[in-house]
Amino acid sequence: MRRFILQKTLPLLTLFSFVFSSALVANELPKAEQEKLQNLKETALSSDLSYDLIESLTTEVGNRLMGTKGDDLAVKWAVEKMETLGFDKVWTEEVYGTKWTRGHAKAKIIAPYPQDMVALALGGSIGTAQGGITAEVVAFDTFADLKAAKVGSLAGKIAFVSYRMVRHIDGNGYGKAVGARVTGAAVAAEKGAIAFIMRSVGTDDNRTAHTGVMRYKEGVKKIPAATLSNPDADMLENQLKRNKPVRFYLNLGAKLEQDVTVKSANVIGELTGSERPNEIVALGAHLDSWDVGTGALDDGLGIGMVLGAVHHIAQLKERPKRTIRVILFAGEEVGLLGAKQYMLDHKNDMADHILGAEWDFGSGPIYQLNPGVGEKSLKAIHELGQYLAPLGVKVANTNSAKAQSDMSLLSKAGMPSINFSPDGNRYFDFHHTENDTLDKINPADLKQNTAVYTIFAFFAAQSSVDFRQ
Amino acid sequence: MRRFILQKTLPLLTLFSFVFSSALVANELPKAEQEKLQNLKETALSSDLSYDLIESLTTEVGNRLMGTKGDDLAVKWAVEKMETLGFDKVWTEEVYGTKWTRGHAKAKIIAPYPQDMVALALGGSIGTAQGGITAEVVAFDTFADLKAAKVGSLAGKIAFVSYRMVRHIDGNGYGKAVGARVTGAAVAAEKGAIAFIMRSVGTDDNRTAHTGVMRYKEGVKKIPAATLSNPDADMLENQLKRNKPVRFYLNLGAKLEQDVTVKSANVIGELTGSERPNEIVALGAHLDSWDVGTGALDDGLGIGMVLGAVHHIAQLKERPKRTIRVILFAGEEVGLLGAKQYMLDHKNDMADHILGAEWDFGSGPIYQLNPGVGEKSLKAIHELGQYLAPLGVKVANTNSAKAQSDMSLLSKAGMPSINFSPDGNRYFDFHHTENDTLDKINPADLKQNTAVYTIFAFFAAQSSVDFRQ
Repeated sequence: MRRFILQKTLPLLTLFSFVFSSALVANELPKAEQEKLQNLKETALSSDLSYDLIESLTTEVGNRLMGTKGDDLAVKWAVEKMETLGFDKVWTEEVYGTKWTRGHAKAKIIAPYPQDMVALALGGSIGTAQGGITAEVVAFDTFADLKAAKVGSLAGKIAFVSYRMVRHIDGNGYGKAVGARVTGAAVAAEKGAIAFIMRSVGTDDNRTAHTGVMRYKEGVKKIPAATLSNPDADMLENQLKRNKPVRFYLNLGAKLEQDVTVKSANVIGELTGSERPNEIVALGAHLDSWDVGTGALDDGLGIGMVLGAVHHIAQLKERPKRTIRVILFAGEEVGLLGAKQYMLDHKNDMADHILGAEWDFGSGPIYQLNPGVGEKSLKAIHELGQYLAPLGVKVANTNSAKAQSDMSLLSKAGMPSINFSPDGNRYFDFHHTENDTLDKINPADLKQNTAVYTIFAFFAAQSSVDFRQ
Repeated sequence: MRRFILQKTLPLLTLFSFVFSSALVANELPKAEQEKLQNLKETALSSDLSYDLIESLTTEVGNRLMGTKGDDLAVKWAVEKMETLGFDKVWTEEVYGTKWTRGHAKAKIIAPYPQDMVALALGGSIGTAQGGITAEVVAFDTFADLKAAKVGSLAGKIAFVSYRMVRHIDGNGYGKAVGARVTGAAVAAEKGAIAFIMRSVGTDDNRTAHTGVMRYKEGVKKIPAATLSNPDADMLENQLKRNKPVRFYLNLGAKLEQDVTVKSANVIGELTGSERPNEIVALGAHLDSWDVGTGALDDGLGIGMVLGAVHHIAQLKERPKRTIRVILFAGEEVGLLGAKQYMLDHKNDMADHILGAEWDFGSGPIYQLNPGVGEKSLKAIHELGQYLAPLGVKVANTNSAKAQSDMSLLSKAGMPSINFSPDGNRYFDFHHTENDTLDKINPADLKQNTAVYTIFAFFAAQSSVDFRQ
């Protein structure tokens, strides 16, 4: 898919023509600091480090669902990389979760026209009984339609939600589609269904189902839950259109072991601030991935970006004034477990988190900086915006952003936050699928991404602004 | 993938603005016939019939590898459809082949970094011994490199050809890549290899391997042969780059039963010519498909086009002068078996095949007519070109075309032929994969395709030209 992504890449000439405007309002960074920034940017734009890190993670570790061998390897990989890349301090903080294993997923239409289906269990789903389930399908266009069904009306049936996610640059189609994935099985079970299937939350047309986390509801029977690839959901819809009963076979080997604890760790590394070491500029990404694909985009991309950015800053002769902390969160995919643990472990120093940004979305160039800071700080954000403008990044007119994914919890707890918007048009073609692999990373876009994070981190760490104000 | 294909669609206004130029050279079709042609074209451009036929075939039959239940169903489906669509004669001619079943394909890199691989057996491959094969991989950039290896140099190894097919509008990258697929296993075995793996012959970046036919060589040991998806071949290459021995596990459940005969049939239907019924205008497509995907593009598209075209012509009050024969060939994928049988069955009436065209390539609009006719007939072909021009079709300056696939055998035997060129840029993203499904059919492109074949068939059947001259 590289060719489409390449077309979206900013021309390199634009990237390299970073020249500060004479009209620049520069309260935070004196001229000498701006030169450092300029050098850092050029380093980031010419460095293959971020790509090489993602190549290493995906090739040598691969996928890394919390509780698996891959996850253990990933923690070791991250600690070693941070140590090699020049971080001053590196440590881990343990995170605990529940054991879940995927197992096989066999699905087919039995009648009226037998057809094999490509399916995946949702993360956290129970399996079917051995031998699988065969039952009639009852279809719903939307999750709202399923919710509106009468209790008992799905007794002995398999509920199917056919809603298709819509493509958008900011990925807003995801929010409209993901509700069914998270709680569809619980709602279907309340209506009497014996299994829940749905069209994948994804924008592609591949025979590749999208997994993702689901949750059962206390007091409601647990039923198996799976997604179908988009072409398979089309096939099921086309058979349903013929107004004959559609019988479906589902056999999931998934296993949820709620009494078995699995262990992982947030991996944390810092460049210690030279003047205000207690003040933390926080860069986040998540270290875990789903157990399909190699997690190159989700969230290898974020890992490569934040490790690359900090390495570039670590090469300067002097440390920036504030501490720059990278947090590679554990267990994001299975319910922000690393972030929740971080909130517990750091409740006493949350106020030291001066400004934070995570990266856990998108595969294209960053086009917008969305601030979520104190009103007085906006002036400094606009100064930062001037440094980012030559990279094609504009500052949004809003000031209510939360950081992405894990760090949204830190934002809610009061951490001033930046949310960078990338071109996310193609992200949900690959999200949570086998297709999330290294070839989906566009090296030129990645250089722009890392340059943005490098500039952001250096600026925030050199600044004296209290971003809560 | 619909959005990309849609962008390539001709504007409908262009399609409907078919008005004959006053400068038209019209020797074959008098004005009243041109009006019929105009009406036929408008019917084809507004009809959903071709799409509905493909929807029916893919939904109600699905894939249809020769010798499978799907293939039996497809023969019945085709006979019934031809009868329903107004063909005057419908019959079948038996075709025989050898039994082959795919079975499972499990592949993984064992060392240095364990990774699961997506693989498919090549069609005709033997399976591995139960328990699979584990051996070191020896990689070759091209098939030529493998051929150049010394005999014995691959003893006990798995040979891997990493060559990647190049994308092109006319699909010419296929020819450069497919040799390894067909005879790579035989060549590798001659060098001592115990299995043969290769990068899929495909232009996509999906975790979807491309199958296709392979052949063993008399007197050379049969070894198992499989393809890897492009991202998996990338992974294998990235591990090989680390200069550590790469150990690979391959377990194929494929089964080649050379002493078991399977049966299928060419399905043939005709509109009987009103004046020269013995003269045949032949439209070809193939009825079989690989056993992955639903064969929507390969060759459901061709089936929908030729059945749709003939149905539109059958709705006219009068039959055209010559007979229009549709041949839906059996066993194309496994070695043009239906075409070979057709050559035997029709050796005595081959000279009656006045002009022929098959459709077995591409998923976009037709942009070129490539003739392969007698020199004197070129004038008539250019008249046909004038009727096709408003659909965006130009006549090539060459005159050496063979018909596609099955019909290439008829061309070689002297049948005058037309080869229509469609936009094939994306065809090899889906070719011989699970992703060859209905959603890959662009309804607007299909209407143009059917309109082209309708005009072609009507023109050739009304013409008095001997296209051998």
